Parts: sequence; C-alpha cells; structure tokens
Amino acid sequence: MNSNKSRGSSVERYIVSRLRDKGFAVIRAPASGSKRKDHVPDIIALKSGVIILIEVKSRKNGQKIYIEKEQAEGIREFAKRSGGELFLGVKLPKMLRFIKFDMLRQTEGGNYAIDLETVEKGMELEDLVRYVESKISRTLDSFL
Amino acid sequence: MNSNKSRGSSVERYIVSRLRDKGFAVIRAPASGSKRKDHVPDIIALKSGVIILIEVKSRKNGQKIYIEKEQAEGIREFAKRSGGELFLGVKLPKMLRFIKFDMLRQTEGGNYAIDLETVEKGMELEDLVRYVESKISRTLDSFL
Repeated sequence: MNSNKSRGSSVERYIVSRLRDKGFAVIRAPASGSKRKDHVPDIIALKSGVIILIEVKSRKNGQKIYIEKEQAEGIREFAKRSGGELFLGVKLPKMLRFIKFDMLRQTEGGNYAIDLETVEKGMELEDLVRYVESKISRTLDSFL
Repeated sequence: MNSNKSRGSSVERYIVSRLRDKGFAVIRAPASGSKRKDHVPDIIALKSGVIILIEVKSRKNGQKIYIEKEQAEGIREFAKRSGGELFLGVKLPKMLRFIKFDMLRQTEGGNYAIDLETVEKGMELEDLVRYVESKISRTLDSFL
C-alpha cells in the first residue's frame, strides 16, 4: 500500500474514532479509495438524521491535493443521492482540516483540486461537530 | 465461511444492487456480522436525507431467526445515534422480507428473535422503497 494510502487509512480510523466519541454513528466505507467502481466516500457519519460524508486525503509537505475526475464525480453522485453533505478531510503534517467538497475546483484535465491556502482555512474536527449539532437543532426547531 | 454467512453476503449484495438501482446511496458495512466489536448493521441505505439501516439474515427452511444480544444491542445503538430506521432483512428459501427491528422480541436469554409468521407478513423490497419515498415526500411537504 503506497504511503499516502496507508497514512490515509490511519487518518480515517482517527476521524471515525473521534466522531464516534462525539456520538455519531460512523463507519469507514469498505475498500475505500479508487479500487471500487461504485465510488463511495471514505467515511459515512450519521447523527440524529444528519448525513455527513467525508473523503479523506493525507499529504506530506507541499504535495498537491487533487482527486481524479471519475472518483470525485462518483462520490459527488453518492452524496447527491444520499441527501447528505460531502466534505474533504485533509491531513497535513501539522493539521487536519475539513472543507466543503464544493470548494474544490475542476482542473483542465477534469480532476478536482484544492490549494493549501483554502485547506488551511478549513474547519477543525470540533468545528465540523458543532456544524452538525447546529443542523440538528435547526431541524428540531422546524418541527416545534 | 459458514453457509448461512455466505448466503447472507450474496443476499446483502443483491439488496444493495436493487436499492442502488432505485436511486439510493447504499453500502455494505465492512466485515459485517459479529466479528466487529462496534456492531454496525449490514447495509446502510440513504436517500434524500432518509436513513435506512438493514441487518440481513438468511435462513433455510424452518431455521429459527435470532440475533445475539450483544450484536442486536450494538446495531440498535448505531441506529439510535444515526436517527435512521433499523430493519431486519430476512431471506427465506422463497421470499425476501423486511421487518421493523422493533418487531423482534427478546428471549429469556437476552437474544432477539422473530417467528416465521411475522417475517412472512413483512415488507417486500418494493414496499420498503415506497415506504422511504413516502417519508421523503412527507419531509418535503413539511418544508413547503
């Protein structure tokens, strides 16, 4: 398994365990990554009816962050069907950030990329949890 | 792999493929079954914000249908956290039925069981799809 991929798996396990501690029903998709023909995001996290999908990328210093067109469009289709929100989780040497997948831009070659500056402005895990909690309370308010 | 388990896997793949054809975002949980310590239902199916969780059992003629206490309570906890609805999907020789997990009763030994008669009255896959579609339209109506 190439080093990016093995680092990606340990980051996925870390994210899953942290979200589980925060009360989510959360799993890693089987054989995550591009081997699957039906592309599925790496992590599916559910809480009180809110659906969060996370594609995880792990990068050493300065490496470009991009996702191949076919895989990106597969996980976007999965997210669209689910009615959930798709995030990119990026592990850099000193930080872990979560960015809404719509922030990625499409390159000329059709792949999806994001620059480090945008990643660094992304949410921390605690912010993502608070974001979901606020969605839950807004949904509850709409029923009262 | 014992024959119940291998039959279970092929039934899971069948259900996943049929739900995918019906527009769901759907996956089989990795290493489904009792090996996992954090019990997760066999199938997670999402559509337009509705979360359906399915534990799949496959039985030959007349075999009892039960789920061990620890596994049953693990998948019930997962379902509770998720805010989704938990179903038991039972493949019998001539039929496949879906029953709300709450229909199972707890045995003296603490396991969860269901009798064949109740299973045979369960939903067919098309009924389950219609059930989800009706939940989706009710949610949309509540926003109009």
